[in-house]
Amino acid sequence: MWVKNCWYVAAWDHELLGDTLLARTVLGEPLLLYRRGDGTPVALENRCPHRLAPLSMGRREGDAIRCMYHGLRFEPDGRCIEIPGQPEIPAKMCARSYPVVERDRWLWVWMGDPARADDSRIPATPTLKHPQWRYRPGYMHYQADYLLICDNLLDFSHLSYVHEKTLGGSPNIAQVRPTIDRIDDGLAVTRHVDDTVPAPYHQRLGNFSGPVNRRFAYEFLLPGILLLHARVKPAHTAEDDLTGALQFDSCQALTPETETTTHYFFMQAHGFRQDDATITEAIYQSLCTAFEEDRRIIEAQQRMLLAAPPRDMHGIVADKALAMFRRLVAQRVQAEQTAPA
Amino acid sequence: MWVKNCWYVAAWDHELLGDTLLARTVLGEPLLLYRRGDGTPVALENRCPHRLAPLSMGRREGDAIRCMYHGLRFEPDGRCIEIPGQPEIPAKMCARSYPVVERDRWLWVWMGDPARADDSRIPATPTLKHPQWRYRPGYMHYQADYLLICDNLLDFSHLSYVHEKTLGGSPNIAQVRPTIDRIDDGLAVTRHVDDTVPAPYHQRLGNFSGPVNRRFAYEFLLPGILLLHARVKPAHTAEDDLTGALQFDSCQALTPETETTTHYFFMQAHGFRQDDATITEAIYQSLCTAFEEDRRIIEAQQRMLLAAPPRDMHGIVADKALAMFRRLVAQRVQAEQTAPA
Amino acid sequence: MWVKNCWYVAAWDHELLGDTLLARTVLGEPLLLYRRGDGTPVALENRCPHRLAPLSMGRREGDAIRCMYHGLRFEPDGRCIEIPGQPEIPAKMCARSYPVVERDRWLWVWMGDPARADDSRIPATPTLKHPQWRYRPGYMHYQADYLLICDNLLDFSHLSYVHEKTLGGSPNIAQVRPTIDRIDDGLAVTRHVDDTVPAPYHQRLGNFSGPVNRRFAYEFLLPGILLLHARVKPAHTAEDDLTGALQFDSCQALTPETETTTHYFFMQAHGFRQDDATITEAIYQSLCTAFEEDRRIIEAQQRMLLAAPPRDMHGIVADKALAMFRRLVAQRVQAEQTAPA
Repeated sequence: MWVKNCWYVAAWDHELLGDTLLARTVLGEPLLLYRRGDGTPVALENRCPHRLAPLSMGRREGDAIRCMYHGLRFEPDGRCIEIPGQPEIPAKMCARSYPVVERDRWLWVWMGDPARADDSRIPATPTLKHPQWRYRPGYMHYQADYLLICDNLLDFSHLSYVHEKTLGGSPNIAQVRPTIDRIDDGLAVTRHVDDTVPAPYHQRLGNFSGPVNRRFAYEFLLPGILLLHARVKPAHTAEDDLTGALQFDSCQALTPETETTTHYFFMQAHGFRQDDATITEAIYQSLCTAFEEDRRIIEAQQRMLLAAPPRDMHGIVADKALAMFRRLVAQRVQAEQTAPA
Repeated sequence: MWVKNCWYVAAWDHELLGDTLLARTVLGEPLLLYRRGDGTPVALENRCPHRLAPLSMGRREGDAIRCMYHGLRFEPDGRCIEIPGQPEIPAKMCARSYPVVERDRWLWVWMGDPARADDSRIPATPTLKHPQWRYRPGYMHYQADYLLICDNLLDFSHLSYVHEKTLGGSPNIAQVRPTIDRIDDGLAVTRHVDDTVPAPYHQRLGNFSGPVNRRFAYEFLLPGILLLHARVKPAHTAEDDLTGALQFDSCQALTPETETTTHYFFMQAHGFRQDDATITEAIYQSLCTAFEEDRRIIEAQQRMLLAAPPRDMHGIVADKALAMFRRLVAQRVQAEQTAPA
Repeated sequence: MWVKNCWYVAAWDHELLGDTLLARTVLGEPLLLYRRGDGTPVALENRCPHRLAPLSMGRREGDAIRCMYHGLRFEPDGRCIEIPGQPEIPAKMCARSYPVVERDRWLWVWMGDPARADDSRIPATPTLKHPQWRYRPGYMHYQADYLLICDNLLDFSHLSYVHEKTLGGSPNIAQVRPTIDRIDDGLAVTRHVDDTVPAPYHQRLGNFSGPVNRRFAYEFLLPGILLLHARVKPAHTAEDDLTGALQFDSCQALTPETETTTHYFFMQAHGFRQDDATITEAIYQSLCTAFEEDRRIIEAQQRMLLAAPPRDMHGIVADKALAMFRRLVAQRVQAEQTAPA
């Protein structure tokens, strides 16, 4: 169940250095990503229209790609410009081209009708490039439907259990009800957890001497983009007193590879002690550890979903945001399927 | 093709020591097995009714299990007793509970209608706990339909070929026709092989100076339980003269995991030189070697059954017992499917 | 899409030394290949008609095969001649026997109606046994439909790209149009590439001081047999002046294992410096390297063909021979399916 007329993150910028030909499957479609000589990105269907050999096994020749099976050559817009030994080139001999935009450090591809690709609809991710934030970029491959990971990100009550010893630290997070608002293309979620024990990971960074207040505020946007502002500060201090506070900004993007596999692009930036590279690395490593905790349970959940006999899920109050988001996805998918051609 | 209203062996007792949460699939259904504080066993569906995360990745809290995805807590009977942050608990928020009984050293689960679970129908396996018998318990995982293994156990003529150099020793076993009787829930099979060469394995244990008489007498019961009494003694001696005789008692249980995989619980006990632990170990190792011989041919047979093009089997006289047992299974399955609700 | 009434190469002669029981799947059918005491080959269905255990796990007893599950014994023509403990043998207890012929060094099996097996239709492969040619025999297993490999062998324009640094060497090969003729059971293809740079592999063998003329002449016959004569000689010399020429003869056979896997039997013989074993080995190793180049792109093409969403191919002029061959295969398959029984 995928929205097609939508921007999906296909790669980090550093995955496309130099002459790299990157093969990546998005929404089940094989893509080839590379850069022109001037650095602008190209996204083509990764199948030569002649005999379907992958163009990613081809060769860069200037801005063009030569298929290294029978030598056909293609422009970045997908048009064939050479067939060895044959002067005429059929108009149909064309690789599908996808709109692709590089914004901050992510490469976004548009998987639907190219005429509707409007890059003003790409979510703003200023933290990805802002000098006041530091982070190390991350990528994980999941053996699970991307919606299961959306579910996870839309209910932080799981921090109390999945991340008990890492990002969680107490059952308090799960006890609190977040504020959930429907916004353009998604949801806004805010959760305040006051007067609680710091998470093990935060305690190491913040060296708190007592209880803390935690605040999570995020937008979760189609197709599966998390833009999070998180704060931990000593409890019982004034709201605007940030002495000793830890502030994090996180950008995360889920991109379906297939029905049961997902690309996960993520980062968590720190807004304190920006010049201490050991902090940047420690936060990255902590995040990877916590994200492995998520993956372990979500991939197990996926296997249980695929197991016989089928089993219904039963809702709880904490499912509110994820149920709203799944409804939104379903509405968009249905709208696309019933739209006039 | 599985009988549901039936007791299946799900585990050896030693697989459930302490706080172990054991995940095991039976008849395609994922189960969680564990013990209460008082030692009594619990069998629950291994999927949280909320979002289907496996409960086996959860945490024991007293006799209850907490799902470590979103923190729901369940009693051993499957009732949910806590949803974090939510006072009301929907009645449907319930994990399926399976009747489970520990008998001698096996844990039996009832996979059908719980109202019909009657533990008096569990086959008697006194050798599993009898002080006069010694054995080391065994388990194998098979990549084959459990009925193919039932077939194997219902026709010992295969000893002459599959186990020629281990448990067999001569073509005589295959030449003899067993006595086969229909009994409650299964078959009784007896095979006498007189004046024959001892099997290589028995010769090492019994050091026979001449030919032997072998006797196999077993019950084979639904769903796939073998209870065997076997004897090897010097030939040409009185029937009741057990001088130099080797006596074995074997309990074996086949439990379908999926349509094409099987759990195999087994032991072969010796009733002679009970205090010699090297004998116990030697018999166990010999049995494992012989059972690997079975597995090699049966898994190959399974692959051939799945291979195209389809191929009919053709019966022989030696198939009598296995054909009777397959008919019995088919009758029970059909009776269950047509039973009034 | 397989022609059934056709001879397929099932093995090299050296794969059947001594008592070897060779299991090999052809057109999806499991075969057992072995030799009688007098050396003549036998091809049987590799499934015992009793319970479908593979006969390749059985035992040679003279020219017969005993199934080592329950001891049934079969003659080389597939008739059962012994069922342990049972005097009567049902007529249906028969393993399917396939016509098989050893010719030069290949074993050919007939996969269709045995009454129509006519060994005069086996393609002539004299180079396989001719004393003037030297070669080392090769075998590869492909994860691809055999027709994709036929395609490859029917359009040598790929040498310029797939084998640029090995057997190719210049785009000239792809620029030239071959002569293509329809012959009995296949096609004759001839390609002259004059005044071109030698391929890297040929330069090492021929030490050419200038441009060369290359000639490829081959028959490509049903079901997928390549019989190639190739020549490289200095350019601008008389046609019949073979001073410094390299001559190769190649026999290659494609045999479908399943819809998406293929057996590939091949050799490339040299007609120069026949007594230099290092040349024989070097040519074999060069061919293996080049064939790995083919396999890499063809297996990738196969994966792309299986990937969603489906994608049409678009033809070019260079597809002429492969399109003709695919049409021929389709015609034969259709003729077999509509033939009166």
